[in-house]
Amino acid sequence: MSTTTQLRSLNIDNINPHVKEAKYAVRGELAVRAEKYRQKLSDNKQDAGLPFDTVISANIGNPQQLDQKPLTFFRQVASLLENPLLLEHEKVLTDSLGYKQDVIDRARWLLDDVKSVGAYSGSQGTPGIRKSVAKFCESESTSIVLLRPTLTTTPERDGYPADPDSIYLTAGASSGVNTLMHIICASPSTGVLVPIPQYPLYTATLSLLDGRCVPYYLDEKNNWGTSMESIEKSLKEAKAAGTDVRAIVIINPGNPTGATLSADEIKSIITVAADEKLVVLADEVYQNNIFEGSFVSFKKALRELQASTKDKKYDTVELASLHSISKGMVGECGHRGGYMELIGFDPEVVQEIYKFVSISLCPPVVGQAFVEMMVNPPQEGEPSYELYKKEYDGIFAGLKKRAMALYDAFKEMEGVTCNSPTGSMYLFPSITLTEKAKQKAKDDGKSPDEFYVSKLLDATGVCMVPGSGFGQEEGTLHFRTTFLAPGTDWVGRITKFHADFMKEFK
Amino acid sequence: MSTTTQLRSLNIDNINPHVKEAKYAVRGELAVRAEKYRQKLSDNKQDAGLPFDTVISANIGNPQQLDQKPLTFFRQVASLLENPLLLEHEKVLTDSLGYKQDVIDRARWLLDDVKSVGAYSGSQGTPGIRKSVAKFCESESTSIVLLRPTLTTTPERDGYPADPDSIYLTAGASSGVNTLMHIICASPSTGVLVPIPQYPLYTATLSLLDGRCVPYYLDEKNNWGTSMESIEKSLKEAKAAGTDVRAIVIINPGNPTGATLSADEIKSIITVAADEKLVVLADEVYQNNIFEGSFVSFKKALRELQASTKDKKYDTVELASLHSISKGMVGECGHRGGYMELIGFDPEVVQEIYKFVSISLCPPVVGQAFVEMMVNPPQEGEPSYELYKKEYDGIFAGLKKRAMALYDAFKEMEGVTCNSPTGSMYLFPSITLTEKAKQKAKDDGKSPDEFYVSKLLDATGVCMVPGSGFGQEEGTLHFRTTFLAPGTDWVGRITKFHADFMKEFK
Repeated sequence: MSTTTQLRSLNIDNINPHVKEAKYAVRGELAVRAEKYRQKLSDNKQDAGLPFDTVISANIGNPQQLDQKPLTFFRQVASLLENPLLLEHEKVLTDSLGYKQDVIDRARWLLDDVKSVGAYSGSQGTPGIRKSVAKFCESESTSIVLLRPTLTTTPERDGYPADPDSIYLTAGASSGVNTLMHIICASPSTGVLVPIPQYPLYTATLSLLDGRCVPYYLDEKNNWGTSMESIEKSLKEAKAAGTDVRAIVIINPGNPTGATLSADEIKSIITVAADEKLVVLADEVYQNNIFEGSFVSFKKALRELQASTKDKKYDTVELASLHSISKGMVGECGHRGGYMELIGFDPEVVQEIYKFVSISLCPPVVGQAFVEMMVNPPQEGEPSYELYKKEYDGIFAGLKKRAMALYDAFKEMEGVTCNSPTGSMYLFPSITLTEKAKQKAKDDGKSPDEFYVSKLLDATGVCMVPGSGFGQEEGTLHFRTTFLAPGTDWVGRITKFHADFMKEFK
Repeated sequence: MSTTTQLRSLNIDNINPHVKEAKYAVRGELAVRAEKYRQKLSDNKQDAGLPFDTVISANIGNPQQLDQKPLTFFRQVASLLENPLLLEHEKVLTDSLGYKQDVIDRARWLLDDVKSVGAYSGSQGTPGIRKSVAKFCESESTSIVLLRPTLTTTPERDGYPADPDSIYLTAGASSGVNTLMHIICASPSTGVLVPIPQYPLYTATLSLLDGRCVPYYLDEKNNWGTSMESIEKSLKEAKAAGTDVRAIVIINPGNPTGATLSADEIKSIITVAADEKLVVLADEVYQNNIFEGSFVSFKKALRELQASTKDKKYDTVELASLHSISKGMVGECGHRGGYMELIGFDPEVVQEIYKFVSISLCPPVVGQAFVEMMVNPPQEGEPSYELYKKEYDGIFAGLKKRAMALYDAFKEMEGVTCNSPTGSMYLFPSITLTEKAKQKAKDDGKSPDEFYVSKLLDATGVCMVPGSGFGQEEGTLHFRTTFLAPGTDWVGRITKFHADFMKEFK
């Protein structure tokens, strides 16, 4: 410890140890280095002294930082929410600026609900927007299929009632997870089942709250499926170790895996939760990013179980379903919006959840408005529908195309195996490195996957995240990449780097 | 515990006890009841069965929920950030919609910095906006006075350098406080000096983190001044009790008190912080809400101390200065924007702060843009200046007028004493209640101030917060009210209620 350090109140040895323990590789050292490269290139593109001319941030699902254009309807409405005085010029809006009547109507309706996007709303979110979310959860997608030509633009879902009072709007799904974990983690022996690999928000939040991560391993050989045996084994071991396991996290579709659960798999998980008294934390933010199979919500599966079995044990299952405007075809990460639906929680516990969220006042109000538009987009026959559908379908097709291109490249790479893209925004290939590469990594004080990804960044400007940032089975190595970046040039850079790397460390 | 409760994972007896301990009266039971009344009135205004026809939310500083109109320049720019396609129609914007050239230029500049308001920014905020904030902190207000006719619209401040890398944009000041407290609170014996009365975010966050609140009392008789004796006494007692006191919170201008600290008072506090190794948490969100005296930032006072004394002990003072777009004449609470400047922190600690904020990805990007406009508003000679200044000065004058009207009413009320309004958005009068009223409160299971404020809400629809929500010296009673609501009708309601109350409980 330096003398200067001793002169201060805080130093690395005396701050909150739980903050120090928390790990969040998605925005870690590699991401910081990538930003430095980007700055260098922006300061002096011709002569930055780097072997690449662009930085590709494939470390995080941030669509609009890359190629994705925002949905026009959403942004037109938002522009009116920000400047309601524009509504005094309807003719200019429609005749000169191409705003359709449904844009204007939606803005007026939302303004009536929020009063001003500059005012705090209720801590749970505005009443009108929560009603829209409930309606979205409630609507039956089968009835909608008949009304609409394709399913990609129809967000309605379950066919079971939803209560606006059970909807909590949030500043993105992360903030909802933070709230729930705060309630659940009561002591250092509290445990939460977390899939491995996982999105590191879960382990980071458990570290901050001094709770225990109880890992259950997803089955890579079975397309990253969720194995009930793995959950039951982990649960048993944790209990034997004195862990008070209170909740299970499921990410469906998976991050980083992209795997989508079937209705039967979901019902098996809910049954374990009912038997073992586990809160189900269903991270469903990728519910619209599905290339194979179809999305079944935990809520729908729970209601079906209740209806088909009449077993009372399902009536008290505590389920929190999380959704977000950051993913899907919306991709409005910067607006920080999302919601969670709370089902089956004890009312006294719900009161504490309310108090907890009230301390941070309210989620961003514009973000709340984007949630409303996500769950209630233009419908067929409405003036903005055609453009909305074209944009939405275009984004979906683009994502699928890029995912396949990247997958095809990985398939060809020596020592790399990758499951076919099924959903979410990521691929999570497995990589086999030579002993020589592993030794060099060790000499550099890095794990082998970190070493590989670090070298990749320095050589190509492509920023990915090592598998160790998400957790992986002992002895395996992976990396996660988004497939959001446009073009194929960057895929070529990866292929070339990989060949060179394998040659260097043969 | 009911049978149903036992069937669940979570119940009120087994959730995180620190969440249960946390108190946040500003949005507590009274605020919830006020919302119910509002809903009742909105459902059936004619026959809601209530003795009032409007609810006045004087419990929270939420200007745009009441009368305050947003600043036009800010909202015009924001509308372009939300829909950049409008920038393809410059002529329509300027000729038909009254957008000035500086609005268009600012939007282009901000879009260049953020790329899209729908993209995640860096976790610390965008580079360009952080540069603007640093420039604002840095600029010397004295030089600006010469350039501008009045000071009300000139936000520049200190005259000492500021580093954009030390600026962290936040989702409102609350989020900055949450970050800092997470770093500081290392164990249950960690203590933080908090002024009493205080904004309850501080005690709530300390409860959540299982830290100790070390109260120091503000001097009501001396216009809610900060007494060094009180700070030193509290510190001594806390140390004797084994508390590891690591930080001191100062709210300047005060919430709920409105008191503004002089440069000398600030320097005395900084000197104690330097001697005792305390992080200074300077909550400066009301820096533009000042009716008497003038604002001196802790940063400026620190730099002056360093320059004048040459004492090395000031070089390692750790200071976090917090600001927000929610207050001042901006009042954009719903956009959740703010920043903190970190001065003198150990670089290793700063890295942990960065990691902590990265877990929640980034503050709302539109909120970041509002921070930029707050610190860099239209300047004299620029096209939008005239309107901006008119609106800004109008809001300032309106707040002052309302504060005085409310103060005048309180002065006339039996058993109420109130310091004259000097700043912030609140009055915090002291009230003397009869034994009969206190007994009735006790019978109702309420503290006397809570009882009074609850009766006030039921009788008039005016929602205030009891002094116990902020802390008050043993044996004293207070309530806090904002002076944001328009008109004087509601002041009359309070006066009449008070007279009736005093008569009933004579």
